[in-house]
Amino acid sequence: MQRLIDGYRRFRADTWPQERARFEELASRGQRPHTMVIACSDSRVDPAVIFGAGPGELFVVRNVANLVPPYTPDGTYHGTSAALEFGVRVLGVSQLMVMGHAMCGGVTALLRGAPPEARDFVPAWMSIAIEARSRVLACMPVEQAQEACELETVRVSLANLLTFPWVAEAVTEGRLTLQGAHFAVATGRLMLLADHTEAV
Amino acid sequence: MQRLIDGYRRFRADTWPQERARFEELASRGQRPHTMVIACSDSRVDPAVIFGAGPGELFVVRNVANLVPPYTPDGTYHGTSAALEFGVRVLGVSQLMVMGHAMCGGVTALLRGAPPEARDFVPAWMSIAIEARSRVLACMPVEQAQEACELETVRVSLANLLTFPWVAEAVTEGRLTLQGAHFAVATGRLMLLADHTEAV
Amino acid sequence: MQRLIDGYRRFRADTWPQERARFEELASRGQRPHTMVIACSDSRVDPAVIFGAGPGELFVVRNVANLVPPYTPDGTYHGTSAALEFGVRVLGVSQLMVMGHAMCGGVTALLRGAPPEARDFVPAWMSIAIEARSRVLACMPVEQAQEACELETVRVSLANLLTFPWVAEAVTEGRLTLQGAHFAVATGRLMLLADHTEAV
Amino acid sequence: MQRLIDGYRRFRADTWPQERARFEELASRGQRPHTMVIACSDSRVDPAVIFGAGPGELFVVRNVANLVPPYTPDGTYHGTSAALEFGVRVLGVSQLMVMGHAMCGGVTALLRGAPPEARDFVPAWMSIAIEARSRVLACMPVEQAQEACELETVRVSLANLLTFPWVAEAVTEGRLTLQGAHFAVATGRLMLLADHTEAV
Repeated sequence: MQRLIDGYRRFRADTWPQERARFEELASRGQRPHTMVIACSDSRVDPAVIFGAGPGELFVVRNVANLVPPYTPDGTYHGTSAALEFGVRVLGVSQLMVMGHAMCGGVTALLRGAPPEARDFVPAWMSIAIEARSRVLACMPVEQAQEACELETVRVSLANLLTFPWVAEAVTEGRLTLQGAHFAVATGRLMLLADHTEAV
Repeated sequence: MQRLIDGYRRFRADTWPQERARFEELASRGQRPHTMVIACSDSRVDPAVIFGAGPGELFVVRNVANLVPPYTPDGTYHGTSAALEFGVRVLGVSQLMVMGHAMCGGVTALLRGAPPEARDFVPAWMSIAIEARSRVLACMPVEQAQEACELETVRVSLANLLTFPWVAEAVTEGRLTLQGAHFAVATGRLMLLADHTEAV
Repeated sequence: MQRLIDGYRRFRADTWPQERARFEELASRGQRPHTMVIACSDSRVDPAVIFGAGPGELFVVRNVANLVPPYTPDGTYHGTSAALEFGVRVLGVSQLMVMGHAMCGGVTALLRGAPPEARDFVPAWMSIAIEARSRVLACMPVEQAQEACELETVRVSLANLLTFPWVAEAVTEGRLTLQGAHFAVATGRLMLLADHTEAV
Repeated sequence: MQRLIDGYRRFRADTWPQERARFEELASRGQRPHTMVIACSDSRVDPAVIFGAGPGELFVVRNVANLVPPYTPDGTYHGTSAALEFGVRVLGVSQLMVMGHAMCGGVTALLRGAPPEARDFVPAWMSIAIEARSRVLACMPVEQAQEACELETVRVSLANLLTFPWVAEAVTEGRLTLQGAHFAVATGRLMLLADHTEAV
């Protein structure tokens, strides 16, 4: 774990002296993030980096392919849904972004099948976005479909967000804005979906 | 979404020129993160910040209270398990850290009950760590149990990690190291669990 | 010209009876378009269609690859610059969008060279975006660069817009907003550039 | 940009479901427009609307006063000439229409001088049609000359088209037909110039 520990020491030496007051205030009055971001676990797409965000700003979910499952309050374990509930209902974030990205391994698995060594959970999880796959493959061959499928996957997540009654209500009442986005790793460019909510 | 966009512009202006070569290389040769971190969605505990990590280093899951459910490959949606599978089996990370933190709202809900407005998913999700709650409340009153329960929750996650056969195998074969940690928001201190692997 | 004439007759039969009052009002009080769009001449990317816009709404420039040259008031013929001057200074539009699109033949010519039969004007015109080409080819092979180069071309146009002193002034004073966009012909999706103005 | 985005959503909701197959086919096999239209940027004279044209039909240039400059392949930026080259030589359109219109602000500037705030580019650009101005003012006072000058401006563009050797050749060989037209905004009427080709 030496690399992690070294990194933590850099944080203590460089970041902490500057951010100390902020952390202390966040500790004493609690977090009040303005935005929730649902992003991929991919090591190249850290929301705090891409959005230049400091401590206390972003409530973040990261899972494979930034997916949101449909609303299913059945008493079983739903990590993303629980985070969504916490962010929207308890913290009252006013913005919610789903950020996809280029070269997403989860989307590749959705399009071409998961690697043989990853079939306990990845295929079932990615099946949340099965409709993204069919929509895209209706328009183009699989070889060209990666980015389009990444975008459609964001749209599936946005659509699923609206199946949560308290998300839909917050959007309707103007307390919450949804936004889809896509980050291109190679060029560092962020695009926003023009039809973030309604079109889904 | 102006604050997010402004932040992205800071990233473009400040970070991108410095990190550009790294992003390009990560785009062309793919990600090879050395470490997977399972952290909380809380806005104050960004792993990339706390570990001074750059793009490509950390494969990150963030959910409420940094929980790992037990291995249950039943074909339903398991976001954290899918990410675990992707990180361990596809990417082959060599380190896996579960990082808890002070003032965790999920742990508070576990100890004292979820807020009334957050009962669709949070209680069921937090029930993963129900054993942490009982272990701690056997020793101390609930008013003093917050931090101890945060630490026990990390231990539950570490124990659950070992129910995944390919995690246990990788640990046994020395290809993967597990580590528990706890970040104190007010002081900026990181503690490592001394009994990270063995105790679980 | 029979197809055009037949189309005009459809317009007279179907559209005119509905839009007549609007055209009459636009004739009597003059045009007051809220938005100027700089789009490609490509037959698949009509701004009025993509933005569901009616008569009087959009002041439109269409040229190859939606390019804006840099400010050069040298007394020679500058069609796009003249339209820009008319839209911004005379009509006072409050929004200005540059819309790129997928499969842009001009961008293909920029990346791979113009077809041999189109070398009187296309290469010189596309050289406006030569910097887009070099920026993209620094990051990826030409085979993968089409869409990235379309996006960078939009950014070059946005940057060149700001070389016009009265555009820059209107933006600074908040009278004019610039926005870049990209339309994917195959999927009908529109994306917005997150870094429309400042990053260029 | 809300109005544009709202319009795009109407396109997604209303137009896209009907035109989807057409866009997909246009994406997969490329554009093959039968006609090129050179029209004014004016917000009231959209060629796709006036000719009831769908995606893929019209390759469109829009500039101030639908002008075509004379053939000058000098390596500087010529947007309209580049579009002409692309439409005629690369796409091989079989019809080319120059469409003027009533109440053209560019023609008004040509007749009476450009507004004081629009003198960087508009006067130089409109000087392409200086001959139209003198022809008309030889016959009538400036107060009555607007429409006549709009028509003469179309004729100047048609004449200039024939200075492009590959346009003249295509016309001579019967591969390309030229047509002048004028759209009266107040009445919605389209007139065709009887002397479209021969007179020029």
